[in-house]
Amino acid sequence: MSDSVNRVVLAYSGGLDTSVILKWLQQTYGCEVVTFTADLGQGEELEPARAKAELMGVKAEHIFIDDLREEFVADYVFPMMRANALYEGLYLLGTSIARPLIAKRQIEIARAVGADAVSHGATGKGNDQVRFELGYYALAPDIKVIAPWREWDLTSRTALIAFAEQHQIPVPKDKRGEAPFSTDANLLHTSSEGLVLEDPWEEVPDYVYSRTVNPEDAPETPETITIDFERGDGVALNGEGMSPATLLAALNELGRRHGIGRLDLVENRFVGMKSRGMYETPGGTIYHLAHRGIEQITLDRGAAHLKDELAPRYAELIYNGFWFSPEREMLQAAIDHSQAKVTGTVRLKLYKGAAHIVGRKSPHSLYSEKVVTFEDDQGAYDQRDAAGFIKLNALRLRLLGRRDR
Amino acid sequence: MSDSVNRVVLAYSGGLDTSVILKWLQQTYGCEVVTFTADLGQGEELEPARAKAELMGVKAEHIFIDDLREEFVADYVFPMMRANALYEGLYLLGTSIARPLIAKRQIEIARAVGADAVSHGATGKGNDQVRFELGYYALAPDIKVIAPWREWDLTSRTALIAFAEQHQIPVPKDKRGEAPFSTDANLLHTSSEGLVLEDPWEEVPDYVYSRTVNPEDAPETPETITIDFERGDGVALNGEGMSPATLLAALNELGRRHGIGRLDLVENRFVGMKSRGMYETPGGTIYHLAHRGIEQITLDRGAAHLKDELAPRYAELIYNGFWFSPEREMLQAAIDHSQAKVTGTVRLKLYKGAAHIVGRKSPHSLYSEKVVTFEDDQGAYDQRDAAGFIKLNALRLRLLGRRDR
Amino acid sequence: MSDSVNRVVLAYSGGLDTSVILKWLQQTYGCEVVTFTADLGQGEELEPARAKAELMGVKAEHIFIDDLREEFVADYVFPMMRANALYEGLYLLGTSIARPLIAKRQIEIARAVGADAVSHGATGKGNDQVRFELGYYALAPDIKVIAPWREWDLTSRTALIAFAEQHQIPVPKDKRGEAPFSTDANLLHTSSEGLVLEDPWEEVPDYVYSRTVNPEDAPETPETITIDFERGDGVALNGEGMSPATLLAALNELGRRHGIGRLDLVENRFVGMKSRGMYETPGGTIYHLAHRGIEQITLDRGAAHLKDELAPRYAELIYNGFWFSPEREMLQAAIDHSQAKVTGTVRLKLYKGAAHIVGRKSPHSLYSEKVVTFEDDQGAYDQRDAAGFIKLNALRLRLLGRRDR
Amino acid sequence: MSDSVNRVVLAYSGGLDTSVILKWLQQTYGCEVVTFTADLGQGEELEPARAKAELMGVKAEHIFIDDLREEFVADYVFPMMRANALYEGLYLLGTSIARPLIAKRQIEIARAVGADAVSHGATGKGNDQVRFELGYYALAPDIKVIAPWREWDLTSRTALIAFAEQHQIPVPKDKRGEAPFSTDANLLHTSSEGLVLEDPWEEVPDYVYSRTVNPEDAPETPETITIDFERGDGVALNGEGMSPATLLAALNELGRRHGIGRLDLVENRFVGMKSRGMYETPGGTIYHLAHRGIEQITLDRGAAHLKDELAPRYAELIYNGFWFSPEREMLQAAIDHSQAKVTGTVRLKLYKGAAHIVGRKSPHSLYSEKVVTFEDDQGAYDQRDAAGFIKLNALRLRLLGRRDR
Repeated sequence: MSDSVNRVVLAYSGGLDTSVILKWLQQTYGCEVVTFTADLGQGEELEPARAKAELMGVKAEHIFIDDLREEFVADYVFPMMRANALYEGLYLLGTSIARPLIAKRQIEIARAVGADAVSHGATGKGNDQVRFELGYYALAPDIKVIAPWREWDLTSRTALIAFAEQHQIPVPKDKRGEAPFSTDANLLHTSSEGLVLEDPWEEVPDYVYSRTVNPEDAPETPETITIDFERGDGVALNGEGMSPATLLAALNELGRRHGIGRLDLVENRFVGMKSRGMYETPGGTIYHLAHRGIEQITLDRGAAHLKDELAPRYAELIYNGFWFSPEREMLQAAIDHSQAKVTGTVRLKLYKGAAHIVGRKSPHSLYSEKVVTFEDDQGAYDQRDAAGFIKLNALRLRLLGRRDR
Repeated sequence: MSDSVNRVVLAYSGGLDTSVILKWLQQTYGCEVVTFTADLGQGEELEPARAKAELMGVKAEHIFIDDLREEFVADYVFPMMRANALYEGLYLLGTSIARPLIAKRQIEIARAVGADAVSHGATGKGNDQVRFELGYYALAPDIKVIAPWREWDLTSRTALIAFAEQHQIPVPKDKRGEAPFSTDANLLHTSSEGLVLEDPWEEVPDYVYSRTVNPEDAPETPETITIDFERGDGVALNGEGMSPATLLAALNELGRRHGIGRLDLVENRFVGMKSRGMYETPGGTIYHLAHRGIEQITLDRGAAHLKDELAPRYAELIYNGFWFSPEREMLQAAIDHSQAKVTGTVRLKLYKGAAHIVGRKSPHSLYSEKVVTFEDDQGAYDQRDAAGFIKLNALRLRLLGRRDR
Repeated sequence: MSDSVNRVVLAYSGGLDTSVILKWLQQTYGCEVVTFTADLGQGEELEPARAKAELMGVKAEHIFIDDLREEFVADYVFPMMRANALYEGLYLLGTSIARPLIAKRQIEIARAVGADAVSHGATGKGNDQVRFELGYYALAPDIKVIAPWREWDLTSRTALIAFAEQHQIPVPKDKRGEAPFSTDANLLHTSSEGLVLEDPWEEVPDYVYSRTVNPEDAPETPETITIDFERGDGVALNGEGMSPATLLAALNELGRRHGIGRLDLVENRFVGMKSRGMYETPGGTIYHLAHRGIEQITLDRGAAHLKDELAPRYAELIYNGFWFSPEREMLQAAIDHSQAKVTGTVRLKLYKGAAHIVGRKSPHSLYSEKVVTFEDDQGAYDQRDAAGFIKLNALRLRLLGRRDR
Repeated sequence: MSDSVNRVVLAYSGGLDTSVILKWLQQTYGCEVVTFTADLGQGEELEPARAKAELMGVKAEHIFIDDLREEFVADYVFPMMRANALYEGLYLLGTSIARPLIAKRQIEIARAVGADAVSHGATGKGNDQVRFELGYYALAPDIKVIAPWREWDLTSRTALIAFAEQHQIPVPKDKRGEAPFSTDANLLHTSSEGLVLEDPWEEVPDYVYSRTVNPEDAPETPETITIDFERGDGVALNGEGMSPATLLAALNELGRRHGIGRLDLVENRFVGMKSRGMYETPGGTIYHLAHRGIEQITLDRGAAHLKDELAPRYAELIYNGFWFSPEREMLQAAIDHSQAKVTGTVRLKLYKGAAHIVGRKSPHSLYSEKVVTFEDDQGAYDQRDAAGFIKLNALRLRLLGRRDR
């Protein structure tokens, strides 16, 4: 693989770090930089990124700003939610799930503009470098990947800012001092980590939260909502049909108001260390629970338990960056197969930092009041069958017991 | 196996149903009945059970009332909590985990008094019959098992009460009418199901809850607590050392006050139907989360992820009644092996229906601020290693990509 | 469910046992019997079954004799082989995989003739009753199932033969005495069990084998063959295109000649006991190995290892009779997804009781001589990447080691 | 981590490659080299290694030659065999399982002689570098690891030989030309790979095999043997008690004679590529099968199936070099727990390239002729129990069927 690069597509946020990278790429590799800025619902203006890129000499036709919100939710978040995926039992994978889409779009742009390289602003200690690069390599095996944080010598914030100033890159006031923590945001979540969060015994300071009110400040009265599902995916809130991104945004607003979806986690990174993060996933937390709720009445036990056994592996694959892998696709095929009848309505109560399922119904419900009832079931279930059922389930244990006890 | 029975040990609560069973066993089998009443922390007086049994002609030396609270928590609840077991993603298995202990003690008593049969009051539709009987058969393969609800013709409440009155069995006033739901309780949880809960779309009425206040009535101020763990098990609350049962009881009181641990669930029974239950697991909910918290810093990723993959199977085994099975014991051996260093302190905030981890520390922490820091790590981690790590993880994806994309 | 039956579809082999059942059904239930005889490649004339059924009063239009060989191999055997399924590590599931197809066809016929019941000749101790009946119930939840062996009192062979003679059912000479073992056969395998095989320490007598020569009598010279696969399924033998059933039949002939596919197994039945069986799966054994061979070069590691982890569960589902279950279908969806490029040719050597892979090639091979070579790989692989790969894989072990060792 | 090295422990075979490494380490790092040569049953004289090391200036007290055969089989091979581990369905892991023991002993020696580094002769493309180094790092997290093949510029055989001649390192005649393949051997197996084996379509030439006769040249008469197991491990051959290494050696001789244990495999390396290897595992192949045989009658189904599901993961961990990891130890704890009653005798027939189980017996057998018999079982099993068993297993499928079909 040659080291010479002609044209590189950079995942560009418009912020200080990726602006420095933009300049550094131009200088170090003497190459043309193409910028790609994705709207994944992070809630920032993206047009300033265009102005900045132009200012640094990026050609107008080489500045890509794409609204990927619907694709993000429909093709990445919802498929993952079908799996009830939780990393290490608690984390809804908000950062992990955005990376493959960015990588995919970057490769599409690289193809469109004839670029021979891609670049990103993730550091060498984190998971995101892995997620970006596994995506790049899976989709474009011979692409050149440039990860400036692993290459350059701008290893302190001071050096970075000096480089910026030297090259007329505007440095926002709040970046001059040491930022107290680092964040990532998209329509599904906001994560924060580093610095003030680095001692896992210390409580996360209140100012770190940006997407949710403190539960103590949430309304005194619970709010009850309904979410409708069709074939495993959310389609309506309180009876009003919505596109995937619209639905998630509406749930985010509800979650924000009720202080739902805060998570303080020490997790295991794929690169081998533990890190402490704080996540806010307001809408996703509600949606995840609602999906469990609709599955409770529409999935058969065999499907449900198999899903539960596959979910940790599936979550690990996404966390580690293997979205574009055959094994993730195989698991997805199994999971998607299970969702054909996951249709119906879930009712939830939101209150002071938590969501609770309070009801669920479905035209495809497998719940049978007639079978389960304590009252006369008119022959729907013959209790004597249970005797044989137990006897044969016990047979091997009895044979064991005779031998061992 | 002969049908004649000389002496039967009955799991006897002292309530109406098992009192009717006591009498029915005496009549139908013409056998001596030995009663066994366990204190598992259900919060009821047990001495009345002695009086009732005596009244129905059970010999004094055949009335067993045992306080099993410490054994229950230390040998059943805590080992299960080490696994972070959740049935169908949400349920803490409060009923399931009590059954094997009752079965075990019943068999011990059967041996002590020379009984040739055991009996229980679980119905033919539920999971408990399976759990009791798999326990009996595993521990005493040749015992005779009598499950009156599958045998007799007292299939309506009216018939049951008529039988009771006919045999001078006192019928509590509140049992005369149709009870609005059925419950089970022990130190870990209270479950409620049936009748008013049978429509899974209808919200659980407030009067069903007995172990927790409504979150809306919980204190306006959060309460912060600490739990200390040693080798995977809780040993202290707020720094005060406690026995297992004492600790769980104290957590129950905290959970009760803050409205923590309510769960409205539609679940899949082992016997093949769906049922809707309401569970209150106040202390267990807090403890479960705290255990996750201490594992976050003391378990290696390999151990943690293997545990997460094994947990659904483990939970299913307990739910289905296979506590005394080689496969549950194998999984327990694996899980217990992982807990050697799961020692330290977790800080939690309790507020309005939910618990949140807000800090954790351990003398055996694997979290390394030095490695993870965004700042200068003094060589603890070489970011360039990540390049090779990603390259080799990507190699197979690149070979695939060259072939397929 | 009413006990009255108007018309029952019987899985009818034409042999003594199912002829007795036919008569018994007519007598006991006073119902019309419809017979269904499937050609699954068991290698018996089926027309005599027609004559016998007519003799016992079955209407001509109620006698169904269907050649299901191609459907059997294409829709049941091959999908299972895609999974590399082995029950308990060794057994190729030859009996298990035939049952769902028979059940499915029986239900189709029941619908076509307006029958309200189905019946089979499997005993109450085996797995086949479960496999048949789970199939019936899954496909026709309200069908009445009659399992004569669990109902009647013809529990000894003497009683059975007496009943036959009393009702003018011809009793073959070799059935008069005690048969030395019991068999089941189809295109995939022949199984034998019972009686002379019941002591698992005693070697299986030579006369039990019917589908393979004794390896000692097999040719002195190895035979080399090729099998071509397309998308996971066999399509040609030695370059000659063949339908699924034709291919399996041709492999059976090869396996027979070389004494391949004998298995002496003690297995765990779903009903809770151990049994000892002898299986002959001549063609299936060769095919199974060949499929592994073609996967070796066409499947990515991620897909291959996930398949290996899912295979025991998949095999267990088929063995236990859950072919028509959501969880089997989910696993199948995952497995089938992996087979898109499993195309190519495997070369095998057959000799004296065993098959050996000796070569494999594919237009979709992922094997890269250029990457793997010990010689100069011209930059296809940078050995220095391995250093970082190992370092980060080791990181968590080093953190552990610092803590624990 | 400093790059200066004082004393390094080299895994030294005495062959050309590690002799060159020895000299290269002395030159490049200017450090003292300690050699460690392990007898793992590879069947070579080890004393010549001492002479060579001395010749290159290694101090007598720094030359370690250890007979690790018993430890290898008892503490590594046998525990792995308890798991019935097969990598990718076929490979008995003969190379993988030796590496952790070598790593462990190297670290022990490093501690004993106060070395600050370890080194090995594995290349940068293979799995062995990973296995060695993960072992080193797990046991001595701060050790310096030197992998010359990833560092030096002796990247062609010509360069290597030139270096050797320049430094008076004797070059064996057969190493002057291009060796036709590369091998690794120990008591469990011999592996061969590279060069003439690199085309996976080409049959392995006969001269590559060194541990087994060609099956065509094996005896015309089968040989029947017995192996006794105690608690999961082999203890006797044909009734004669033997130590672990003695037993494996004796089985190797039997396997050699009958041409058993040859495997031609294309496998997936941990470093991301596919490779083609040829393995000869004569005794291990027989032992593996025998262990399955004894488990068939002594393991309960629950334990057996759980083992089968865990085995692929366990095998992958060993293959990838994670012997000294918490997750391997957890799985081992589960597996070992299952072996308490795996005691008894297996009879096998060896013939022309294959082993076959022909009988098994145990004082702890769970096989019950009384229960399984086709004849009168005197009430050991009530066939009517099967009706209820099937009915409740079918219930969820019937509810599904009513909804979906």
